[in-house]
Amino acid sequence: MTTAFEAIYDPAWAASWDAVGLVCGDPGQPVRRILFAVDPVARVVEEAAEWGADLVVTHHPLLLRGVTSVAATTPKGRLVHRLITSGIALYTAHTNADTADPGVSDALAAAVGLDGPLRPLDPDPADPEGRRGIGRVGELASPVPLRDFAARAARGLPATVAGLRVAGDPDRPVRTVAVSGGAGDSLLGAARAAGADVFLTADLRHHPASEFAEHGDIALVDAAHWATEWPWLADGAARLTRALGGGRANVETRVSTLVTDAWTQAFGAASA
Amino acid sequence: MTTAFEAIYDPAWAASWDAVGLVCGDPGQPVRRILFAVDPVARVVEEAAEWGADLVVTHHPLLLRGVTSVAATTPKGRLVHRLITSGIALYTAHTNADTADPGVSDALAAAVGLDGPLRPLDPDPADPEGRRGIGRVGELASPVPLRDFAARAARGLPATVAGLRVAGDPDRPVRTVAVSGGAGDSLLGAARAAGADVFLTADLRHHPASEFAEHGDIALVDAAHWATEWPWLADGAARLTRALGGGRANVETRVSTLVTDAWTQAFGAASA
Amino acid sequence: MTTAFEAIYDPAWAASWDAVGLVCGDPGQPVRRILFAVDPVARVVEEAAEWGADLVVTHHPLLLRGVTSVAATTPKGRLVHRLITSGIALYTAHTNADTADPGVSDALAAAVGLDGPLRPLDPDPADPEGRRGIGRVGELASPVPLRDFAARAARGLPATVAGLRVAGDPDRPVRTVAVSGGAGDSLLGAARAAGADVFLTADLRHHPASEFAEHGDIALVDAAHWATEWPWLADGAARLTRALGGGRANVETRVSTLVTDAWTQAFGAASA
Amino acid sequence: MTTAFEAIYDPAWAASWDAVGLVCGDPGQPVRRILFAVDPVARVVEEAAEWGADLVVTHHPLLLRGVTSVAATTPKGRLVHRLITSGIALYTAHTNADTADPGVSDALAAAVGLDGPLRPLDPDPADPEGRRGIGRVGELASPVPLRDFAARAARGLPATVAGLRVAGDPDRPVRTVAVSGGAGDSLLGAARAAGADVFLTADLRHHPASEFAEHGDIALVDAAHWATEWPWLADGAARLTRALGGGRANVETRVSTLVTDAWTQAFGAASA
Amino acid sequence: MTTAFEAIYDPAWAASWDAVGLVCGDPGQPVRRILFAVDPVARVVEEAAEWGADLVVTHHPLLLRGVTSVAATTPKGRLVHRLITSGIALYTAHTNADTADPGVSDALAAAVGLDGPLRPLDPDPADPEGRRGIGRVGELASPVPLRDFAARAARGLPATVAGLRVAGDPDRPVRTVAVSGGAGDSLLGAARAAGADVFLTADLRHHPASEFAEHGDIALVDAAHWATEWPWLADGAARLTRALGGGRANVETRVSTLVTDAWTQAFGAASA
Amino acid sequence: MTTAFEAIYDPAWAASWDAVGLVCGDPGQPVRRILFAVDPVARVVEEAAEWGADLVVTHHPLLLRGVTSVAATTPKGRLVHRLITSGIALYTAHTNADTADPGVSDALAAAVGLDGPLRPLDPDPADPEGRRGIGRVGELASPVPLRDFAARAARGLPATVAGLRVAGDPDRPVRTVAVSGGAGDSLLGAARAAGADVFLTADLRHHPASEFAEHGDIALVDAAHWATEWPWLADGAARLTRALGGGRANVETRVSTLVTDAWTQAFGAASA
Repeated sequence: MTTAFEAIYDPAWAASWDAVGLVCGDPGQPVRRILFAVDPVARVVEEAAEWGADLVVTHHPLLLRGVTSVAATTPKGRLVHRLITSGIALYTAHTNADTADPGVSDALAAAVGLDGPLRPLDPDPADPEGRRGIGRVGELASPVPLRDFAARAARGLPATVAGLRVAGDPDRPVRTVAVSGGAGDSLLGAARAAGADVFLTADLRHHPASEFAEHGDIALVDAAHWATEWPWLADGAARLTRALGGGRANVETRVSTLVTDAWTQAFGAASA
Repeated sequence: MTTAFEAIYDPAWAASWDAVGLVCGDPGQPVRRILFAVDPVARVVEEAAEWGADLVVTHHPLLLRGVTSVAATTPKGRLVHRLITSGIALYTAHTNADTADPGVSDALAAAVGLDGPLRPLDPDPADPEGRRGIGRVGELASPVPLRDFAARAARGLPATVAGLRVAGDPDRPVRTVAVSGGAGDSLLGAARAAGADVFLTADLRHHPASEFAEHGDIALVDAAHWATEWPWLADGAARLTRALGGGRANVETRVSTLVTDAWTQAFGAASA
Repeated sequence: MTTAFEAIYDPAWAASWDAVGLVCGDPGQPVRRILFAVDPVARVVEEAAEWGADLVVTHHPLLLRGVTSVAATTPKGRLVHRLITSGIALYTAHTNADTADPGVSDALAAAVGLDGPLRPLDPDPADPEGRRGIGRVGELASPVPLRDFAARAARGLPATVAGLRVAGDPDRPVRTVAVSGGAGDSLLGAARAAGADVFLTADLRHHPASEFAEHGDIALVDAAHWATEWPWLADGAARLTRALGGGRANVETRVSTLVTDAWTQAFGAASA
Repeated sequence: MTTAFEAIYDPAWAASWDAVGLVCGDPGQPVRRILFAVDPVARVVEEAAEWGADLVVTHHPLLLRGVTSVAATTPKGRLVHRLITSGIALYTAHTNADTADPGVSDALAAAVGLDGPLRPLDPDPADPEGRRGIGRVGELASPVPLRDFAARAARGLPATVAGLRVAGDPDRPVRTVAVSGGAGDSLLGAARAAGADVFLTADLRHHPASEFAEHGDIALVDAAHWATEWPWLADGAARLTRALGGGRANVETRVSTLVTDAWTQAFGAASA
Repeated sequence: MTTAFEAIYDPAWAASWDAVGLVCGDPGQPVRRILFAVDPVARVVEEAAEWGADLVVTHHPLLLRGVTSVAATTPKGRLVHRLITSGIALYTAHTNADTADPGVSDALAAAVGLDGPLRPLDPDPADPEGRRGIGRVGELASPVPLRDFAARAARGLPATVAGLRVAGDPDRPVRTVAVSGGAGDSLLGAARAAGADVFLTADLRHHPASEFAEHGDIALVDAAHWATEWPWLADGAARLTRALGGGRANVETRVSTLVTDAWTQAFGAASA
Repeated sequence: MTTAFEAIYDPAWAASWDAVGLVCGDPGQPVRRILFAVDPVARVVEEAAEWGADLVVTHHPLLLRGVTSVAATTPKGRLVHRLITSGIALYTAHTNADTADPGVSDALAAAVGLDGPLRPLDPDPADPEGRRGIGRVGELASPVPLRDFAARAARGLPATVAGLRVAGDPDRPVRTVAVSGGAGDSLLGAARAAGADVFLTADLRHHPASEFAEHGDIALVDAAHWATEWPWLADGAARLTRALGGGRANVETRVSTLVTDAWTQAFGAASA
């Protein structure tokens, strides 16, 4: 399974600061059931154990910053104990899945209505064909007002309590759309340079968003981090199944539908 | 004016990475009208010019990272030109106002219902009396369910399109409350160490919030960055007026009511 | 157990680059049998499992440099899996045990014949009483030739295949002796400054040892790293037992006698 | 104007630590009169205002190290206010003009008597043709004694109160000459490696000059920093005029003749 | 002589942290007698003076870390005084001799019984032919038990008091052998990646050796640092003689047989 | 001698980047004649050898940046060979002599006409009495025009070909004077903060001097680096003689009068 998945999402494509691959478990152990999820949190491991999964594949790393202890004195240490005593392995495909072609932002683009050809927002200079990279840029079939694009995106992404936040004139027409699953602060300049009318991403903070909005020539849409990455899970599961030989492989996959967005309630939003 | 304000919010209290004080204008020029605002953006300078202000006091710095050009080729350069040609000075009180006693988080605490004594969340080690510091911690008069606390906070803060986001069991009782105006990622550990039942702040991103929530013993409330700092403006204006001799000083102050939160519309929020 | 041990070997005494404390296991789980060993290697965990230990206390950290994976693809990952599935916790007391008073080098000093009072070789500046620190210095009851001191040290330390290596005139009399358990390269200058006639430590490499020997005024003895630290295990076990209330605590301790020195055979030594 | 000038002195050629381009002013504003000067100081801006210039082009940056304030509390802040309120833009061509072909050191070489072909002293590795670079090296038509070369250079450069300083035997013949406008400490090794008989530059301090002179095989001439760069101004002005279409462009240029060398009087020099 | 030697061991091949070439002496002075030794220590300079050498060539640098004083207050300063007052020059070929083809590890490989073709253990990426690099890997004519390989190596290397130390099952067959003269800690991973059955090097410390041994798939042999580099001296001397024109050059070379290993006695080794 | 001198100019007072003390020679060797000079250059060592000096004391270090070779392939290496073969030791007192009370700038202050009490320009925070430090500040007996102060300073300092350079209105009265021997760029701010009317130092470059002059409230005088430090030599020699017991010590001292300023000729100065 590891070999098959690494042929699709090559660990060498991951960012230098990232931590991808097998986090715990023994690569020699046979795998029958694989649960796909965005976040390696307790509820997801619970679901895996109940379903009898041998492996959990998550987008986010559990131990991004190196640890010198996995004692059960922290939530992460308890998760490692729970996984190992339950015989469940944990595998992460993070920035290598972001940058792959197709990758995380291709699934996000499809979810918000971009059905034409896409190009990378921040191309990986190591890819001579220019197809891999973080984020995607594409054109809508025809221009729509920002408000309509945002409403469609809200419907296309899985629901979260806080929904989407928009910066920009709701009536301005948008056609060229940039998207990037997960935190997009560092890609604001790239989105503007790409000539996008709107950039949809997540985890935008006040200062970058507000300073960016002063330019006045590109709108922003901020969605839940989890919601922008969840659409990719089905794609990753399907590609793995195919790589393992489809139905003959005797491996079952499931995409977790637990909402692991950090936020569980919203108050006072003037939502359209 | 500069001297009076620096007696209240000593620039030496600012963080080493911060940039506070006079950003443009001549300290020798007389001041009659002072506009207070959170963000140094174009609409705020417009308001100042229309009202005939000589000085704008903002919480956020315009040039936090040093610049080698103020040419009118960027929004910030255009703002500098607009200010200087209009004869309007710009003055910033940022982390020195955050840490002051009383400071930004005292006004925030009052706005969300904390009317008892407060202590710093992250005390400034340079203050022997232990009164200055970032964030504040206090107790509600009696415990209330998290949902009620959040609803009250949503009413106490100025309205923004996205309102508040909450992580935690809505029924859990909260009594000890930590608050910090502006981005609060770096204070999550301090809030937990302070024994808070809930931490209200802004600009929390998915990873820190989600990992923090796995501890399960403290709830989070994420508000608009702008909304958590706006309550302080009236306090700063009043203290300056008093320091200048009250009505005799022939100086008028005004607090801008423009909402300069980055976000102007919300979609799909399941707001309570 | 953790609490009792940390009262003896305070984790705050450890070097900033060190990683001490619980490495895996749940601090809430009861402990009946504790195995003490120098190195967290597979044979030691095997011994622990065979004896039915609940806890292994080692001097050396397993994960000194932070890891982002504990998958069973490396010896260390396999050890973590073996420990967790066997329900055996792992606890490390490293530089905090080195620096304690008494600590690792006190047991080493006793083993090589120093039975008078000792002082730290490199005192911890944080200890106002000047008793904690790395290494120890003391005087022999009367001067003996270097060759006799070395022969006595070889008998006093547990046997290893490579024994001791000596630099210096075998007939020179030695009285003041500096010792430091484990790698001692960085303490050569301190040993000379302390006026020692001989410095016994481990893991000395050619360049530091050879350059040091050119001074001609102090001899060197290089022993097996493992052998210089093993004498402390019995001391640590006894102190823990006492702290837990002695026999009433219903906790058994054992010191592993497995030789975990890296070297298993020697060839061509012209050993005296 | 900006576009035309950047075609001649490409900002991409500037050193990574440099700050070139428009410093203040609006690129959309029309330009009729352009004043060229070495230093952006108050007397130069005064001259520009009196002449009615719309733009000042200087060789030295005003804000080389980034600033977080342009308040009129410092000489540089006062200059920014004066420029903006007078409607005068400021543009800098610094290391991109040094390295250009022809650039600052070509004009300097001509001024000190080098009228043959020149090659870069420190070639820019990014230029495949090897023509760009800092400093220039050339041959005099025939060898002359060092004293004669220095006397000619003193006549060829604009007068300053301190003139030139020379290190080396006044009778030694010089033929190969290296020159570099502005501070030349870092190019001493390059001048020697280039086989120069003499290196003329500015701002040489005692230690580098004295240690360099101990080699005994190359003489040094130290001129006023301002004087070594002033000859380039006429060249830059002429090239800009040509690029704008010559006389048809309706743009006037002027080279400031204010001496902005830091030094205004000399005492006790034993000048030849 | 310097020129001839640098044609064989190009200083440009040395590691960036290294210090090779002439350490003291005048390159213009004629040379009749050259002593080759591993370490620049007092006894070696004594031997050179007694023999009437004009030049000492050592493998190890005297002043690897830069010094600001050569006063006769340290062993190294005294050596510089002794060399200069005796008119003896000192020249170092260190990592440039290690990496050369043939270099230090070729002589070591021959000494321990590798008489077939060799390849670099850590190839120098700057060598397009892939022949230069640190360490060498080769195959024995036929597999032998580890114990036999170690015994043969002990006989092939010059004798030192501590001989060799071995980690691994003495009966395991070894065929592919990696060797590296001098401290080999940093090459453990390369030796394993090269598929070696055993890695012979020097100065291995407990932690790297012990952690490496846990892999169980490759044995280690640790020899005296001096002994692993001494075999190269004869090779360097012969190549220099050839380069200088053989017998016609009127230059005598000698290889010092002084054992400058740091250790002069061993105790308690259980040597096979 | 070393001990006596270090009691006067404690090496511990030197800056962390400095290299003071014995550079070559044997501290055990007797000393009869000591030559004092500013720079360790060939002509000074020649003078020492001709006079029969055993020791040269210089203000400037020979090997400020550490070297890995003293081969006679560079001027500095040749100097080391010349010193050692001539049996002449070299000793440096640099920033420890600058900061001492009295130190280098006290002698400079006296030379330019400051005969009242002096205080440090940049006090050493490690001196509880506040007497040590770099530079000195004092008052002239009565104000004089800048031009007169400069003329007097030119007469008071030893002659050099380039004399003094002055920035500031020649008629402005000066009374408070700051001086600092050697390169003074880094002390410009301190001189202004000290309320000086004029700052006399050396090695000022165009950018710091020109930017400083824009303040308009303090004049600058730039002298030859050598000339500002030479006055101290007689003071150091006298203090050493006293410390050694005056005439009874049988030690002769001499101050070199060789001008080792880097510059040997000037051209075109408009010297007053």
